[in-house]
Amino acid sequence: MTLSEKLTITEVAPRDGFQNTSTFIPTNDKIRIIERLLQAGIDSIQIGSFVNPKAIPQMRDTADVVASILPRFRAKNLSVLVPNERGARFAVESGIPEITFVISVTESHNRANVRRSVDDAFAELATIVSSDSYPFDHIKLDLATVFGCPFDGITPFELVRARVARAHEIGIRDICLCDTIGTATPRQTRAYISALRSEFPDIAYRVHFHDTRGVGIANTLAAINSGITRVETSVCGIGGCPFAPGAAGNTSTEDLVFLLSAMEIDTGISLEEIIAAAKFVATVVPGPNTSGHLIHVDDDKMFPRGLYKIVK
Amino acid sequence: MTLSEKLTITEVAPRDGFQNTSTFIPTNDKIRIIERLLQAGIDSIQIGSFVNPKAIPQMRDTADVVASILPRFRAKNLSVLVPNERGARFAVESGIPEITFVISVTESHNRANVRRSVDDAFAELATIVSSDSYPFDHIKLDLATVFGCPFDGITPFELVRARVARAHEIGIRDICLCDTIGTATPRQTRAYISALRSEFPDIAYRVHFHDTRGVGIANTLAAINSGITRVETSVCGIGGCPFAPGAAGNTSTEDLVFLLSAMEIDTGISLEEIIAAAKFVATVVPGPNTSGHLIHVDDDKMFPRGLYKIVK
Repeated sequence: MTLSEKLTITEVAPRDGFQNTSTFIPTNDKIRIIERLLQAGIDSIQIGSFVNPKAIPQMRDTADVVASILPRFRAKNLSVLVPNERGARFAVESGIPEITFVISVTESHNRANVRRSVDDAFAELATIVSSDSYPFDHIKLDLATVFGCPFDGITPFELVRARVARAHEIGIRDICLCDTIGTATPRQTRAYISALRSEFPDIAYRVHFHDTRGVGIANTLAAINSGITRVETSVCGIGGCPFAPGAAGNTSTEDLVFLLSAMEIDTGISLEEIIAAAKFVATVVPGPNTSGHLIHVDDDKMFPRGLYKIVK
Repeated sequence: MTLSEKLTITEVAPRDGFQNTSTFIPTNDKIRIIERLLQAGIDSIQIGSFVNPKAIPQMRDTADVVASILPRFRAKNLSVLVPNERGARFAVESGIPEITFVISVTESHNRANVRRSVDDAFAELATIVSSDSYPFDHIKLDLATVFGCPFDGITPFELVRARVARAHEIGIRDICLCDTIGTATPRQTRAYISALRSEFPDIAYRVHFHDTRGVGIANTLAAINSGITRVETSVCGIGGCPFAPGAAGNTSTEDLVFLLSAMEIDTGISLEEIIAAAKFVATVVPGPNTSGHLIHVDDDKMFPRGLYKIVK
């Protein structure tokens, strides 16, 4: 594994993590966490989502989060997730320059997640992309259930290809391949990415692996080995899909930064600061955050002579 | 990743896991767990260790475990760990046909773990290998701290090579490369294995990765990609080194079996039965068993239509 360019990590905890907590995280805590993450060297981050507050009440303060963060960190790649035109209108009002639209590859999960057909979702995305009413600098697409679906099982590649082709037709050139329920394997990851990069080479891909079955890091490395240079992770590994029952745990940002640092792959993120940020998150965010490993390792105890750090 | 031969998993929970529990696991529970593991299709297993009961009281009943298991499962590859000649004598008395001797690559960890120098440990192993007093069918060597040491940091490859050369000289042809504190990376794994296989091709290698920092599965896959066909794991991911502070968590047997099954790599182990065994272990073994992921996944909830299994 060698990388000629820097690996970019997009931090998704403020959206994917905070949307799944049992209690509402106070807006000020969200803002403090986002600040810590940005200060650790994260330069791409999903800071919330404009979704129906009845469906996901934890995200009801996204406009306040954007209003606090955007003026101070405009140079960073800040984005919000939106599931429909209504969300896109809130995003325009907030001033955020970048949005992530979300559509599931599988019909059943798309209906559970955003309550409409895949075709209707793409039609809405096409409107957002083409209309002057949505003057975003950049529109990304999160494709959910690329590898497996809680309702339909393993997602056939042909279906993934059809969705990517439709996105390409609309003009989307930035797609995140999401393993929503953590069933991908390194073999499937390599096969799907290789085929997509070959067929749609002008699309920039990202990947997002849930760690439900402990394969998040291995899948992420498989993607990197397949030429992917942009990956999504969540500090402490918090996250999951509220409409994919049991889909717990993301690949942890600090675990991946540790591993990439040890493999001498540059992310621009300070390992020390991201671990400190993760420990802070663990004190603020309710519920068990089991996906992350590093926050449970006491390196002072592990290296009692105090002289040694695995990664400088 | 393709494998022309079957991948063999050696289960180490009855030794590496049970030695680290906060309270003594009753002998009958140990025996029931070992039975469940063997019945799930495990055919290589470390069922205990003959160590000083003052140092590791949890292993004081190994002779009883062997006496119960050996007559009924003689066809399986049953072994015990021994750290010295004294342990080897107990092993001979028990009738167990196979032992695993343990020596750390690093001087400091070897002294912490078995209270003697590396040279002295190898001298003792040489005696066991050559003496008629120890009529074992097979003697394996676990090399600890191959990738990193809690006292010395990253283990230089030259030191690993020197220890393997010494083992080879003595006549050892079966060596397990152990990542005692979970600091290995896939890159380091590939480099060390490739160099060792090239230089000592007549040694059969195994690997053993702790999952302390979440890289156990990825390192195991890297080893498999480097030609390794024998890996050690622990059901529920239980385990750690009592003399490497903070070294918690093994790569989980059931997580690896799930992943290999999904990648169509044969282990001979029933996924359904190993998950059932893992759930049983979680009810019997005290303390948090955080390394395993599958036991926390409610697949009935994950796949509510009940029709779908990722792996048949």
